[in-house]
Amino acid sequence: MPEKINLAEKLSGFEDQWSPKIITRYNHNDIMVVKTEGEFVWHHHDDTDDFFLVLKGRMTIETEDGDVTLEPGELYVVPKGVKHRPVAHEETHLLLIEPSGTPNTGDAATAAQKDSI
Amino acid sequence: MPEKINLAEKLSGFEDQWSPKIITRYNHNDIMVVKTEGEFVWHHHDDTDDFFLVLKGRMTIETEDGDVTLEPGELYVVPKGVKHRPVAHEETHLLLIEPSGTPNTGDAATAAQKDSI
Repeated sequence: MPEKINLAEKLSGFEDQWSPKIITRYNHNDIMVVKTEGEFVWHHHDDTDDFFLVLKGRMTIETEDGDVTLEPGELYVVPKGVKHRPVAHEETHLLLIEPSGTPNTGDAATAAQKDSI
Repeated sequence: MPEKINLAEKLSGFEDQWSPKIITRYNHNDIMVVKTEGEFVWHHHDDTDDFFLVLKGRMTIETEDGDVTLEPGELYVVPKGVKHRPVAHEETHLLLIEPSGTPNTGDAATAAQKDSI
């Protein structure tokens, strides 16, 4: 039987920040939720765009081309190769999409493990 | 400068139903919003999964494997090849993701044109 995915329910199941959780897959992409707060590291992805949809909170995505600030119901796709740094002004919940296997820091050596929940 | 995309603002810009509007792209996929109401046609996609996130309203996705009913903040990815029919119980707003060029009915002959907004 098909099972729906409730974003709030998935987000209620963990507390750790900057640790994306895979909630389903779409073709060869991971659909993820993550809790964030404060500054992430500057990074880029050589091979993929980076999809951010804010579900709760407020985040600025600083990029080498300028900054964009997102509130709930707002999204931005960082183009492939563009250096960026997400900065969450309070605890911010996101829906993320990345090709399966993409390191969240752009570098496998420093990336968070992505568990499925 | 990067430009954020506000889903509610995009949805306020049109009234037609079952006519997906492209709001941005992620790799080779169209990120779309659509307004729906009532029954769509049974169809499947040979080459892609089909991503549905309900933003407003209430939708049952009938599939050959069983049905799933989604409310706001709930999503489901119909696996590639699975026959399905979306049925919106009231006006329902969705975020959709499909590879660019995918016909929304699974058949180019009957598909809606997807305009960018």
